Amino acid sequence: MGVVAPQRFGSDAPLRLKSGVTLPAFELVYETYGTLNASRSNAVLVCHALSGNHHLAGVTADNPDEIGWWDNLIGPGKPLDTRRFFVVGVNNLGGCYGSTGPLSINPETGRRYGADFPLVLVEDWVQAQARLADHLGIETWAAVVGGSLGGMQALEWAMRFPDRLRHVIAIAATPKLTAQNIAFNEVARQAILSDTNFHGGHYAEYGVVPSNGLRLARMIGHITYLSDSQMGDKFGRQLSKGEYQFSYDVNFEVESYLRHQGSKFSAFFDANTYLTTTKALDYFDPAYDHDGDLSAALASARADFLIVSFTTDWRFSPARSREIVFALMKNRRRVSYANVDCDAGHDSFLLADPHYHAVLRAYFENIRL
Amino acid sequence: MGVVAPQRFGSDAPLRLKSGVTLPAFELVYETYGTLNASRSNAVLVCHALSGNHHLAGVTADNPDEIGWWDNLIGPGKPLDTRRFFVVGVNNLGGCYGSTGPLSINPETGRRYGADFPLVLVEDWVQAQARLADHLGIETWAAVVGGSLGGMQALEWAMRFPDRLRHVIAIAATPKLTAQNIAFNEVARQAILSDTNFHGGHYAEYGVVPSNGLRLARMIGHITYLSDSQMGDKFGRQLSKGEYQFSYDVNFEVESYLRHQGSKFSAFFDANTYLTTTKALDYFDPAYDHDGDLSAALASARADFLIVSFTTDWRFSPARSREIVFALMKNRRRVSYANVDCDAGHDSFLLADPHYHAVLRAYFENIRL
Repeated sequence: MGVVAPQRFGSDAPLRLKSGVTLPAFELVYETYGTLNASRSNAVLVCHALSGNHHLAGVTADNPDEIGWWDNLIGPGKPLDTRRFFVVGVNNLGGCYGSTGPLSINPETGRRYGADFPLVLVEDWVQAQARLADHLGIETWAAVVGGSLGGMQALEWAMRFPDRLRHVIAIAATPKLTAQNIAFNEVARQAILSDTNFHGGHYAEYGVVPSNGLRLARMIGHITYLSDSQMGDKFGRQLSKGEYQFSYDVNFEVESYLRHQGSKFSAFFDANTYLTTTKALDYFDPAYDHDGDLSAALASARADFLIVSFTTDWRFSPARSREIVFALMKNRRRVSYANVDCDAGHDSFLLADPHYHAVLRAYFENIRL
Repeated sequence: MGVVAPQRFGSDAPLRLKSGVTLPAFELVYETYGTLNASRSNAVLVCHALSGNHHLAGVTADNPDEIGWWDNLIGPGKPLDTRRFFVVGVNNLGGCYGSTGPLSINPETGRRYGADFPLVLVEDWVQAQARLADHLGIETWAAVVGGSLGGMQALEWAMRFPDRLRHVIAIAATPKLTAQNIAFNEVARQAILSDTNFHGGHYAEYGVVPSNGLRLARMIGHITYLSDSQMGDKFGRQLSKGEYQFSYDVNFEVESYLRHQGSKFSAFFDANTYLTTTKALDYFDPAYDHDGDLSAALASARADFLIVSFTTDWRFSPARSREIVFALMKNRRRVSYANVDCDAGHDSFLLADPHYHAVLRAYFENIRL
């Protein structure tokens, strides 16, 4: 994909959020790949998950090592082929990669929002993404695609703007979190909220970051992204220094891996964004306003669907994807479903598993422009 | 069982620990239930898990609400019937309920051990328990019983002192932790170690406790003790105040539950004990010295075995129990195995599930005295 430059879109129209709060204006950072065709029929929106952003593919001008998080999927000749599609990646509202969020300056105070940034939910992200689509002159997306929380945004698009997309590809997604999912998010939030550097979410004013809380949050999350079996294969009980150490230093390889992942993440991600994003996960529940009936919630959808799950995903298990499939079938939507046998747990959606990528490639090839 | 009074046993003989460190002397707190018969053939040792202690059944003199953690199993007429058996519960070395541990005074310094208390592992606990058996005049236990980490102690007894027990009952146990198990323990440890009140494990000298780290550790642990389905049945997505709140206050019932469990635990448990006990879990691996061959490790065992697992236990899954069963069968040991269909995950071992208790009752009834 080569070097890709981020772009900015500013919306001056107020955005009323699901929480009731109105944002007077906002900015989104986005990237595009490929060329929008004359009929504007080849645009694909890719929605990101908890820790993702707008930089989907290629590298940044600043850093040739900063490869987009879905670079294995998106590019010339890749399953989401940028010779055919015009692909858009956007950092969501409340994000920490340049879009308006907790790190932005609150115009009312002249200081960073921090914890005063309102909670933004999946519905709000999709509203903001629709504004970006207007700006780009995209009336109808050929497809809206996402994995995990990104897949939940794709579902929301189908329900909220049924006439503005033709295909939904929701991968490793769920129609709502389970109590166990919420429990893991809650421990992660508690780790951040109780960090002495958190300062009620206004840590920026103190020149510190609650990096330890964020590190713990990421470690907890990371366990749920991997499968038990893959962790076993990858690390087993391998010892870093070949023998047991009677101390709390790193001893098992898996400890070293988790600490590394946690530290790396806490060095760049914003804690307030992490908090608000986990709440967006917890609160997503389109069936909630329909007495728990997901098919009623999806009744407004007009798109065709591809739903993909992974056999070893215990965070959002295949059964959760099948709930979506059944609700769509009840509405007589066209829906394809693949349960991919991949050992990498929830994180499988980020990998280039051959079966998985073949499914996506075939689906994209069959999208008429 | 009525009121039970704790007793103390002091050993003045040095105890060489697996870490290589020698404890010059130690004390254990224990309770007994029922009466040791004349032939001393009816003694049953009950080993506790991570957060357990010596107070198995009945209440304490101080507090009629302080009911023993296995009171549903142990007592007159209960599956482990104290009219027939003499039952012993002991707080393990390194514990925080009165046995020598991090809260004890280090005779060399006159101050609490804190982090200077050596790591004590399953093998060390069993050594110390054997000293208590000597003191009580018990040459051979009718049975050694335990759930989870307690089951691992029961296995260790069978390997280390094959002639000193006739039956092993290991419930919801595992022959070694998986990478995922270790990962959860490691996040819990990191939460404690990084608490600003931890002070390198010498928090007692500062008059504080790392209660926040301990609270997070317990919350993480608690998720792994329950099953996904039980959490779903118990809490689902029920909202504490009936509607979504756009804040980080408790919103879902499961959040309230976890916070309560974490806070309750952190108010009484010692952080250094938590650390050392999770290491005992991580390091238990009897097959390690036998090139990973569990049956070789168990070759020294002479006892009969009852192994019990629970269908919804994802911490130490039924497959882990079956590894033990197969290794025992390879050694032509007499082994009974029950995989109990109980919805409560790992914590099932603490509950009075009728099938589970019927299995234990029948096994105990068949033990000849």
